[in-house]
Amino acid sequence: MKNELNTDSHSRLKIIPLGGLEQIGMNITAFEYEDSIVVVDCGLAFPADDMLGIDLVIPDVTYLKDNFEKVKGFVITHGHEDHIGALPYILKDMNVPVYATRLTMGIIENKLTEHDLMDTTRRVVVKFGQTITLGKFRVEFIKTNHSIVDAAALAIYSPAGIVVHTGDFKVDYTPVYGDAIDLARFAELGKKGVLALLPDSTNAERPGFTPSEKTLSRTFEALFEEYKDTRILVATFASNVDRVQQIINTAGKFGRKVVVEGRSMVNIIETASRLDCLHIPDNTLIDEDMLKSYPEEQTVIITTGSQGESMATLSRMASGMHKKISIHPGDTVIFSSNPIPGNEKAVTKVVNELLQKGAQVITQDAHVSGHACQEDLKLIYTLVKPKYVIPAHGEYKHLVAQKKIALNLGIPKENIFILQSGDVIEMDENSARITGKVPAGGILVDGLGVGDVGNVVLRDRQRLAEDGILIVVLSLDSDNLQVVSGPDIVSRGFVYVRESESLIDEATQIVEVAVDKCLEKGITDWGKLKGSIRDDLSDFIWERTNRKPMILPIIMEV
Amino acid sequence: MKNELNTDSHSRLKIIPLGGLEQIGMNITAFEYEDSIVVVDCGLAFPADDMLGIDLVIPDVTYLKDNFEKVKGFVITHGHEDHIGALPYILKDMNVPVYATRLTMGIIENKLTEHDLMDTTRRVVVKFGQTITLGKFRVEFIKTNHSIVDAAALAIYSPAGIVVHTGDFKVDYTPVYGDAIDLARFAELGKKGVLALLPDSTNAERPGFTPSEKTLSRTFEALFEEYKDTRILVATFASNVDRVQQIINTAGKFGRKVVVEGRSMVNIIETASRLDCLHIPDNTLIDEDMLKSYPEEQTVIITTGSQGESMATLSRMASGMHKKISIHPGDTVIFSSNPIPGNEKAVTKVVNELLQKGAQVITQDAHVSGHACQEDLKLIYTLVKPKYVIPAHGEYKHLVAQKKIALNLGIPKENIFILQSGDVIEMDENSARITGKVPAGGILVDGLGVGDVGNVVLRDRQRLAEDGILIVVLSLDSDNLQVVSGPDIVSRGFVYVRESESLIDEATQIVEVAVDKCLEKGITDWGKLKGSIRDDLSDFIWERTNRKPMILPIIMEV
Repeated sequence: MKNELNTDSHSRLKIIPLGGLEQIGMNITAFEYEDSIVVVDCGLAFPADDMLGIDLVIPDVTYLKDNFEKVKGFVITHGHEDHIGALPYILKDMNVPVYATRLTMGIIENKLTEHDLMDTTRRVVVKFGQTITLGKFRVEFIKTNHSIVDAAALAIYSPAGIVVHTGDFKVDYTPVYGDAIDLARFAELGKKGVLALLPDSTNAERPGFTPSEKTLSRTFEALFEEYKDTRILVATFASNVDRVQQIINTAGKFGRKVVVEGRSMVNIIETASRLDCLHIPDNTLIDEDMLKSYPEEQTVIITTGSQGESMATLSRMASGMHKKISIHPGDTVIFSSNPIPGNEKAVTKVVNELLQKGAQVITQDAHVSGHACQEDLKLIYTLVKPKYVIPAHGEYKHLVAQKKIALNLGIPKENIFILQSGDVIEMDENSARITGKVPAGGILVDGLGVGDVGNVVLRDRQRLAEDGILIVVLSLDSDNLQVVSGPDIVSRGFVYVRESESLIDEATQIVEVAVDKCLEKGITDWGKLKGSIRDDLSDFIWERTNRKPMILPIIMEV
Repeated sequence: MKNELNTDSHSRLKIIPLGGLEQIGMNITAFEYEDSIVVVDCGLAFPADDMLGIDLVIPDVTYLKDNFEKVKGFVITHGHEDHIGALPYILKDMNVPVYATRLTMGIIENKLTEHDLMDTTRRVVVKFGQTITLGKFRVEFIKTNHSIVDAAALAIYSPAGIVVHTGDFKVDYTPVYGDAIDLARFAELGKKGVLALLPDSTNAERPGFTPSEKTLSRTFEALFEEYKDTRILVATFASNVDRVQQIINTAGKFGRKVVVEGRSMVNIIETASRLDCLHIPDNTLIDEDMLKSYPEEQTVIITTGSQGESMATLSRMASGMHKKISIHPGDTVIFSSNPIPGNEKAVTKVVNELLQKGAQVITQDAHVSGHACQEDLKLIYTLVKPKYVIPAHGEYKHLVAQKKIALNLGIPKENIFILQSGDVIEMDENSARITGKVPAGGILVDGLGVGDVGNVVLRDRQRLAEDGILIVVLSLDSDNLQVVSGPDIVSRGFVYVRESESLIDEATQIVEVAVDKCLEKGITDWGKLKGSIRDDLSDFIWERTNRKPMILPIIMEV
């Protein structure tokens, strides 16, 4: 792949998404003008179902490394994993400054501390309305609303024109914390003239408007009233500080003490409180050990695990694996969340377990989305009046839905670009077109290993997962072409061996015959011998079991 | 576990669900009175996500085998896999007659033919309204509606009273094929007095009424009108004959030829047509090879794969792997289905691929459920007036929702029994209580193996899937306690070895040291030697990679 791009187009703006367009997650987009590159976000993705054993996926930033001298910094829109999660991995190889709003930076700093990168990373906290200069670019942070406090849209000023990147956002006229989205600024930018808009496409398939976070305060009050005689547990996203604030407020009204469970939630609440983004009245929070000192109906437990994550606190409570808190008959558990696609079964498993322990479980109507729906998006288009549109943040179906909205609002078809990660689009006020492709894709992280598990390893894991492995070992006297020991067959993940002894015995005989045949022929190429063992054994196993375990012959020469 | 139950309660009816209460699928319930057992349904379940490599799950029928002389037959409510799929496996061990309505039997016979069981299995086709005698029981088949033609509820007459088992059902006043559900018969039974009701709980969480299948005819007509200039593909469930009928009818109205894709759908359509449950006008169906002879806008392709199943026809078309049919820009693909929980991501993957090929994709409003919602269920309770209720067909949360409905309609709490598979409930008109437990659970089927993969094998597969395997082989001269060959380390699914040579070299050294230490100490217990290798190597690997591959030391004595 060609990493150096045409440089004959000096006076055009290049926009290069390096992730985020094939899946939810791993958002990262480079903006390049002459000698300057600004990178918006640096997120991770969670592994697809077929990425067995993989912990997370980070973007391939070969292009940024190859152009390291141009990179002026990372500009971060908000503190969710899919926008910041890859930062520690990338900063290790590429030490550039990071720009973000206050809470976003607070969350990033937690990560940098974990990865021992605090001392080496230059960090700049930016206020809404503030503009920073990064080489040929200026970047302005604009207040928006989202399911995390301090989310920003960006106005990226380049000599070729202004680009508005919405980040993940919603329009919330009555936010719980801070101001409503700065629609006036979007309008001013529209008046100035906006070259391109990169709008959040997550909810572009959904008609209507996204309700305000504040609408949930009534919901919580009604639920706390209805279940006032029981202990209440509320599961939600660790990073949704506003949600936590509303639950704490409601707890206060009803005179309940609050316990926070789940490391990630404890961390974010600590950070948000310190930065004044969350206000917890005195004498509200108690330690889990104190729970027994209060009547159950005077307590609330706020917990992680709303997605059914098997290691999260709620799952451990539901399955009876939590050290200190167990679910009792009569407990009320509120899921203040919707299952993220793919998590439905895991959530249902937890719900079933909670019900089996006698809890009442509420899974409906205690959540609102953090992303703009179609009518909200139309508002932004109408204010910003972009010339070009590059749908951002979503799977292909979301990008297509975004494109439909843009078309509906009169943006010409040829001005809307559904890009793939790695596409280079060059634009100025006269034209825009895709001019190249840079390396892009996911780098797999497994434990401490970054990139050492690729397709070969994953294919092996898939095969091992399906039908296990049969290992055939034998020791050979290579001088006399004689079997000294074995062949022995050892299996794992194939059959329960104690009940399949005769199968393994027969398989061993098949191998013996195969080996004898080869040795009689005087074959000394162990590759051929192994191939012969593999072929005969896999035929036998398929015929007898209809399975295809991995077959691994190992020959020891003595 | 005790398989013989108390026999001092001769005059009571026992109801023993052997599956279907912990998950969707694997429905099978035994009804026992004195020397007679009747078994309702014999379904399979699809494997849970953690059952790696498993093809399907069938119920443990130890109790039936132990009481074989009592078993009078299988009575089948309808032809879905979760109600008939285990029949061929169970009938191989337990040759008893099978009773079912016409199409249900047709589908069962397809299975029996595949498993070479047609000659040995006694099959009795039953009509709606007909009653069969099975030992001390009489069983009446009652017409219902469902997402497959010829679904039946059962009235099970025992000397202890009448039990009504709804099977999977919906209330459809305007079905596409055949009559509406025989509500009058439910009412008559209610007048006679019904001891117990086993109601379908699948949709017990959903308020309101389930719309008629017929409502989709307008939907299809509107869609065919809107997309009259394009080829249309409709994906739906293979067994939904009524749905196929409606699509064919609409195709006829719009003068389109119909191609049917997907082996399971072709089979069921063939069976349904032969049994007169589906009416395909002459000159409607064409072979896929004939597609190119017609203008695209005069064709419809009905296909399997609406759940995103990777091997189904729609997925293969979407990913460009189908031999004969490819998706073109402008094609319209209608998903006449909702994703079954757990299939959301797979469906989205197919949708994205279809969109990328330029198709228009409709995923909303072209499906209705086949299961009764809350108001429909209330209708059945009101007609049947059961004394006892045993919520059937569903996960725990569905059974709890069903219980709430029953409570709402005035059934006393102590008369509603949420059972677990294996529970034995005994009842007569005076009382009902759980009196015992019989073996129950899922038997895993993997290829040709039935039950040879259990928890040990699954745990190994899980571990292999996560982090792969390291195999350590060495040949020992056991007389002189000397290493003759090795130790060698072979890995699969762990790291990409070519790029991790130094890691494997170091690991080999770790093993060498461990082996030397043991041999120096004169250890001749190879179990201890293996343990030592395993411990030292896994510590090293964890420290260096944070991974826990399976470590398998193999010692060859020469």
